[in-house]
Order: sequence, then structure tokens, then C-alpha cells
Amino acid sequence: MNHISLEHGGGGTLTASLIKELFYKNFSNAYLLEANDSARLPQVRGRLAFTTDSYVVSPLFFPGGNIGKLAICGTINDLAMSGARPLYLSCGFILEAGLPLPQLEQVVGAMAEAARGAGVLVVTGDTTGVEKGAVDQIFINTAGIGQIEDGVDIGGHRATVDDIVIVSGTLGDHGLTIMLERHKLGLQSSLQSDCAPLHDLVQTMLAVCNDIRVLRDPTRGGVAAALNEIAAQSKVAIELYEENIPVDREVRALCEVLGLDPLHLANEGKLIAVVPAPAASAILTAMHRHPAGRSAAIIGRIAGRPPGRVYLRTLAGGRRLVDRADAEALPRIC
Amino acid sequence: MNHISLEHGGGGTLTASLIKELFYKNFSNAYLLEANDSARLPQVRGRLAFTTDSYVVSPLFFPGGNIGKLAICGTINDLAMSGARPLYLSCGFILEAGLPLPQLEQVVGAMAEAARGAGVLVVTGDTTGVEKGAVDQIFINTAGIGQIEDGVDIGGHRATVDDIVIVSGTLGDHGLTIMLERHKLGLQSSLQSDCAPLHDLVQTMLAVCNDIRVLRDPTRGGVAAALNEIAAQSKVAIELYEENIPVDREVRALCEVLGLDPLHLANEGKLIAVVPAPAASAILTAMHRHPAGRSAAIIGRIAGRPPGRVYLRTLAGGRRLVDRADAEALPRIC
Repeated sequence: MNHISLEHGGGGTLTASLIKELFYKNFSNAYLLEANDSARLPQVRGRLAFTTDSYVVSPLFFPGGNIGKLAICGTINDLAMSGARPLYLSCGFILEAGLPLPQLEQVVGAMAEAARGAGVLVVTGDTTGVEKGAVDQIFINTAGIGQIEDGVDIGGHRATVDDIVIVSGTLGDHGLTIMLERHKLGLQSSLQSDCAPLHDLVQTMLAVCNDIRVLRDPTRGGVAAALNEIAAQSKVAIELYEENIPVDREVRALCEVLGLDPLHLANEGKLIAVVPAPAASAILTAMHRHPAGRSAAIIGRIAGRPPGRVYLRTLAGGRRLVDRADAEALPRIC
Repeated sequence: MNHISLEHGGGGTLTASLIKELFYKNFSNAYLLEANDSARLPQVRGRLAFTTDSYVVSPLFFPGGNIGKLAICGTINDLAMSGARPLYLSCGFILEAGLPLPQLEQVVGAMAEAARGAGVLVVTGDTTGVEKGAVDQIFINTAGIGQIEDGVDIGGHRATVDDIVIVSGTLGDHGLTIMLERHKLGLQSSLQSDCAPLHDLVQTMLAVCNDIRVLRDPTRGGVAAALNEIAAQSKVAIELYEENIPVDREVRALCEVLGLDPLHLANEGKLIAVVPAPAASAILTAMHRHPAGRSAAIIGRIAGRPPGRVYLRTLAGGRRLVDRADAEALPRIC
């Protein structure tokens, strides 16, 4: 059996063997192997973080990752953005009949590796097969549970005037990588997705200052969307300094050629932090020492007016509004 | 805007307005409205149950429910099968460009109603838009967190010789309803899906006897698949009494015409319980008093040999092996 067939998600013998041979082997842990309708987990001491995301990226494989690595890192990162330590993931696969089994194996292998690397357990899952044409190859949903320490209070509503805005690294790498892969633009590049887990970087930052106000990972819609959300939730303005925004030289050049704005491109291994001004430089120093934060930079500050607006102080000394994009440059980016 | 477009899941202004106007309005609760990358939830006292399922049912609407009601009840039921009280759900939508917005509104409305009815909060979610042809209308993933009381230990490995097997009601209603709808067989029927939440029935049963050994909701693959799983996990045989298996008269007649076995058909509002023999009749009495258990019946017992096998004592006095179906009679049943 070298291809997924409809029966692989039907609840019969083929479903059972796929679950055993592929998922149990890769994600092996005592909770998953209990094989009940829901995983039974020990009590979590502290508040919970809970999140979900669906992954539909096209193509499935791209420089720097694949849909499986993305599905693990993305949900870990959503948990980390509440300051949580990620503990448990669920995983739902929707598979198109005819999908070559080796492709699924490669995806699941990447998931297992990413989860292991992050110390997170995939404890429950679901596999659904649909007929050819009802889904494009593989869609994956992951949900996650994390633990939030007492005293940590990170939320989009907490940005305060004079707080500092930090970004953990260069912008746009993931979005541009997918775009080049998808459209086979024929441009030579060494670009790759920045897809990576950020929870450990967040714990490093919290060790320096546990009064971090806001964390966001700027995926779909990019930094522009994330900052507009924060500005609206906190009823503040956000002022960015154009010259401080870290963008890889190749990304910048390609963005110019293609007419794209790195602020609108998706990232999968970067975070934005709003932090109290007195702690900003200590947090930045700690980030620079962490592999996931080597290119971290202060890119702006929180201002009072006009509330809900994000604007950019340009190199030329002007001021330009940073809007959410009306239309996404690229669907199926993650 | 009367149709879903790609931009509805792209992270831009259209995504933001869909989330506000549709999801926040329907699922309104303080955790969701915080609008962070993950929901921040209070500490849960006790062990956790955690589960996920993807819903791809076709057609989206059917007698007795729709994909939205199914996505809420199905995940509530998977939590309930660990004896858990369901607390929080996540919800991920994958939407096909071109989907009429009123259809999505109807689905989301049904989800909100089902969640409210069950006392469960949808606290986090995700919306992804894909191009026409990349998904068939709407796929939904839900994951759920529940709380397991101390002293409750329900799992597929706990069936013990002489335990009693109970089913909470008639078999096959959901599977047959979908089949008739899908294939427009032109058969007149009053059949409808049994789609319903079972957590309250489970709490009623646990109040009588908290040593319930196994609970399973026999969805894809039906009772045959669920019992084969239990027999394998507990290394026991399961003996069913054909004459006790509750099947609606119309379902039985249609199964005969169509050559189907009700034991292989999916259910969405039924459970199988394996319980200690001395408590069986008290549990059954309590189930009969609950709206979700009115037709509950004792359908079998746990035997020692041959381990891993499920067999049926037929009306004629014979003995027939009950296998998992090799091939699912019907894909996209839930």
C-alpha cells in the first residue's frame, strides 16, 4: 500500500494500521499509546494556554521546512505568545486519497522531530481520508496546551505609552520563500523559511523581565497585521523606526523587485515583543545570546496618539501609515 | 460580501472583520474576546482530558444536524468518553473561496447553540481560506479540554471478564441518514442523525458507579470497530447478544434492503460502556431516566477467550465473528 486510500480514515483495519505503524511509532508516548477517545493527562499546575491552527501551506515541502514542521512550530509559538511553556499537542490530518505514503511519512517524521526538539508531546490525534479532489494533498490542524506561570500577564491589551517594541529577527523570510517556491519565479536565492519554535526564547526573555506586556508571532498578515491588532487592543499608537527594522539583504532586494513590503510578509520563527522601557535593553541583550534572537532589534515604541494606528518614521524623515493589507499577498502561506 | 474569498483567511482586514462579526458574536466569551495568539484559561483542578477531531461530513446539512453541530458534539463526546467534564473547545475552519456566507453563518450558529447547550466555551480558533477546489466547502477541526474527577479511571484497557457491555441507544441512525442524503436514494424515510452531546449522560452514570471501566462513542467504523479496539486493548473477548442490540425499525429495514450491518454504521450520539456486572442494572436504570439514554440496553458481556475477538450470539443460536470493516461503507460520515 503505497498511497493513501479512502479507507485509511474510515475507522476500519486500514485506519488502525496507519495509526499504529505511522503515528504511534513517530509520536510514541504513554498518553497517546493509551489509545482512548481522548488523552488522559496529569493535572497542570498553573493557568492554561490553549490554541489551534490549521496548516494548508502549498507547496508541502519548501526550503527550511515542510507542512509538518510548520504545524508543530506554529502551535508551539502561539502558546509561547502567552508566555506559556508548551506541554501537549493534538494533531488532526485530512488526507487526500492518492497521496503517496512516503510524503506523509516525511511530514510526520518532521513533526515528530520538531516536537521532540521542543520537548512537547503529541498526545491525541485524528486521521480523516477524503476522496481525490476534496482536499489538496494534506491539511493538518494542531491544537496545543501550555502552562502559564504565576505572575506572567501577557496580552494584546497591555501595551502602554513609552513601552518599547522589539522584533526577534529578520522579517519576511518565510513568506518570500513560499512565494518563490510556489510561483517558480526562477530567481536564484539562498532564502529559506525561518520556521522555528520560540518558546525557549520567550522563557529566556521572561527570566530577565516577567512583566513583558505583549508577545505576538507575526505570521499571516506579517508584522503590519500583528502591530495593528496590538494598537487596536491597547488603544495606543505604535511608532516604528524604518532604519531599525531587520530585513535580510536578499529579502530586501527581492521585495524591491517584486513590489512587496517585508512588514506584510509572513514569518514563522519570529516574535514581536512590547516591553517596559526600563527593561528593554536587558531583554535585548538576553535575546542576542539566544540562537532564536541573534538579530533581535528595537524597532519602535508605543505612543499615545492616534490610538489604533501604526506608523513608520521613514529614513527620509517622513511618516507613513502602516495598514493591514486589505488583500493577502499570498494565500496558503502556512 | 456574500461569499467567502481568499482574503477572509489571509490575516488582513477581511479576516479581522469575519472574526469579529461572525465568530466573536456567536462564541462570545471573555477568553475568546481577549484575542491573543492563545487563550489564557484559569487553572483546572484535576487531571485533563484532551482530544481532537476533523469534520469533513458531506453533505454539510442533513436531517438532525449539520457539520457545525457535529463538530461541537463529536469533540464533547470524545472528552466525555474519558469521564471528563468538557470545559473548553478550540475551532479551526478551512473555507473554500466562493462559499456562500449564509451557509457559514448557519454552521457557526449551530456550533454556538450546541456549545451553549452543553455549557462549553469555544475559547480559541483559526480561519484559513483556500482557493476554489482546494477543499470541499467547509472542513472544521475542533479540539477540546475536559476535567477528570479524582477516582475516575476509564480506559480501553480496563474491560475485565464478566463485565457487562451497555449501549446507550439505537445503532446506525447517523450513518444511514448521511448515506440516504448523500446518494439521494429516493427512499422515503423519517430518519435523522442522532448527533447529540453525551457528557451529561456520562456524569449521570458516574454518579451511580464511578468504577465504569470503558466508554467509547462508536462513530466511524461503528460499534464493530469500537468493540474490536476494546477487545484488543483489554486482551479479552466480547460476546454480543443479537436480540438485545437496539436498532430502530426503519434502520433495520433499510439495512436489510441495502445489505448493511448496523454494527458497522456510524453513530454520533451513542456510547458503549463496559461496566462491572454488579452495578450494571443500576447504571442502566439511571440511563433510562436520562433523555440521551432512554433506549439503553445491555448488549453483551466480556469473556476471556479468544482474546481480541468480538462475536455475536445470533438469534438462531449460532456464533458469528464481528470484524472491523476492511473498507468503510461510507467516507466523510463525520
